[in-house]
Amino acid sequence: MESAIPMHLETQRTRHMRVPDDYQPPYPSFVARYKPAVSRVVMAYFGVQYRGATPAAATEALAEIAGLFAGEGGPSHWDRAHYVDQAGHANIVSVAYWDDIARFDAWFAPAREAWTGKSRDGIGTFIEVLRPTVARHETLFSSLGRPEGVAVIADGMSGEVQEHAYWGGMRDRIPLSQTDPMSPGGNPELIPDGARLRVKANDNLCLIRSGQDWSDTEASERKLYLDDVEPVLREGMDFLRDDGLAIGCYANRYMEVLSADGKTSEKSYGQSWWKSLAALERWAESHPTHVKIFGAAMKYLSTLGPSAKLRLYHEVTVAAADEQFFEYLNCHPKTGMLAAVETVAA
Amino acid sequence: MESAIPMHLETQRTRHMRVPDDYQPPYPSFVARYKPAVSRVVMAYFGVQYRGATPAAATEALAEIAGLFAGEGGPSHWDRAHYVDQAGHANIVSVAYWDDIARFDAWFAPAREAWTGKSRDGIGTFIEVLRPTVARHETLFSSLGRPEGVAVIADGMSGEVQEHAYWGGMRDRIPLSQTDPMSPGGNPELIPDGARLRVKANDNLCLIRSGQDWSDTEASERKLYLDDVEPVLREGMDFLRDDGLAIGCYANRYMEVLSADGKTSEKSYGQSWWKSLAALERWAESHPTHVKIFGAAMKYLSTLGPSAKLRLYHEVTVAAADEQFFEYLNCHPKTGMLAAVETVAA
Repeated sequence: MESAIPMHLETQRTRHMRVPDDYQPPYPSFVARYKPAVSRVVMAYFGVQYRGATPAAATEALAEIAGLFAGEGGPSHWDRAHYVDQAGHANIVSVAYWDDIARFDAWFAPAREAWTGKSRDGIGTFIEVLRPTVARHETLFSSLGRPEGVAVIADGMSGEVQEHAYWGGMRDRIPLSQTDPMSPGGNPELIPDGARLRVKANDNLCLIRSGQDWSDTEASERKLYLDDVEPVLREGMDFLRDDGLAIGCYANRYMEVLSADGKTSEKSYGQSWWKSLAALERWAESHPTHVKIFGAAMKYLSTLGPSAKLRLYHEVTVAAADEQFFEYLNCHPKTGMLAAVETVAA
Repeated sequence: MESAIPMHLETQRTRHMRVPDDYQPPYPSFVARYKPAVSRVVMAYFGVQYRGATPAAATEALAEIAGLFAGEGGPSHWDRAHYVDQAGHANIVSVAYWDDIARFDAWFAPAREAWTGKSRDGIGTFIEVLRPTVARHETLFSSLGRPEGVAVIADGMSGEVQEHAYWGGMRDRIPLSQTDPMSPGGNPELIPDGARLRVKANDNLCLIRSGQDWSDTEASERKLYLDDVEPVLREGMDFLRDDGLAIGCYANRYMEVLSADGKTSEKSYGQSWWKSLAALERWAESHPTHVKIFGAAMKYLSTLGPSAKLRLYHEVTVAAADEQFFEYLNCHPKTGMLAAVETVAA
């Protein structure tokens, strides 16, 4: 049993963990481990948005960003996913990860200009970037052998960690929680720059990417997941998308991961922006929509036991004000962090 | 909005609350308020145990303890409840409350001798007492106007309190949590004294009495409670009774409150002894049996909204080693805290 907090980020605590030192989780979970030399990671979401049939410009833009990713200074890993949002627009989001901020910065300046610097026919584009210090970030995996998201660029996975399977584990896994309540500061502001709309969000904004992979499940387990768990998960994701703002969820996307050939895969993830880690905690712990998800997942996992083939993971970041970048071009006003601010119709 | 911690018990914190200062609970709840002069309360459980038809000795014992309660130095309030335990024995427990330790001590010495000092034909008797400082104790009520248990002897009820409707609220309402993790110390020990068996339990032992009152519910609400909530609650109570030890629950009784005429009423409570507050927290937050109870209660309350007539309350104490007293005479070895120690057959 090891701590989710890597040894070199352990500090003298001024805030306590939520569980006693002798706490033993009831089942194993694992976290991504970066090389100690990695001080920051970057997670960058590049979105294409359109309504109706796929415009040629969308296909071109997706090829273009893939080309940029493959070029000098590009990410160590990226993936792509799809969803249809509350306004009926399709969104295809390419998510890229770096573990070197200098390499990212050099790569990003021209890539940004290429992505949101010019209008394209019939599509909107957007960029959402966090570049947190590793002390502001945590991951959790239900099993080994198939890292996802930011964990792909890590050095490897931990052994079994202590801080999970209780409410508050997410916070306790973030190294900064040893000394900082990570309270939100300020309110999101719109910064128009011609047609480009930037959002300056609040200090200690929180991002979660929470994924499901049912590709290894067979017959009865697959049926149980798709019939009993997935619909409840979808209902919760829809609630956050449509009514999240009142409880501090700025935006939520329930994404279908696309495979390399652009087809849908048997993987999904929810990705959401929150005013604070505390707001995410409150929803997860006590909102009826997540209590239902938690109940369905508990029932599923206790029915299957250790033989379950479903893979679950998440990554959570609490970003300082200067670790964030949001820019939207020709997107509808409920896109991503635009939903957190008042915009005038373009 | 006020703190559940009374002003005169606020201290310089070395441990943080689980929620931010601006946390707003989604619905109202209330706590009992004692006069600031009250430094300790006493909760004393006097049990009668027998198998099969009620022996004359049981009826006599119940009349006797009621007489003692009514005498000089007796409790400010008491109530009585009934349950059939895992060994098939009936248990009738008279629970009495004091807010003056000197009065209790003077009253208790002869009462104890009367209750567990002599064997009675065909029945066992037991005494379980906590006498915590008020800083080691909290209550919670879903509505005003009908205090139960220890709250009956309080000065009154608070206004709406902040520390509830999140996991960790129970701990945050206990004043001592401001500075102390309330970790358990030591292991329960059996102290035989002839036929009398005493248990010296561990430091920071935890007691919860968690009650339900459906006497005000009508037609459809009553049906919903009795059909959808109560069976799930009973299942959880049975789990704690039969299999609780492995998760730190020494003993659990799911009691039917008896009215003044000795008949059953439309009130019940679960009463359980725990190794620690942390063990109780873990069960409540993540054990499938309580997750089901929580889910059923959430569904019930969200169906009915503010019109719900069901009343819920609890009282929780974390007692220091010298604030506890357990004594059993002619009871079976799974009775109360005897379940926590090895006993030889009498």
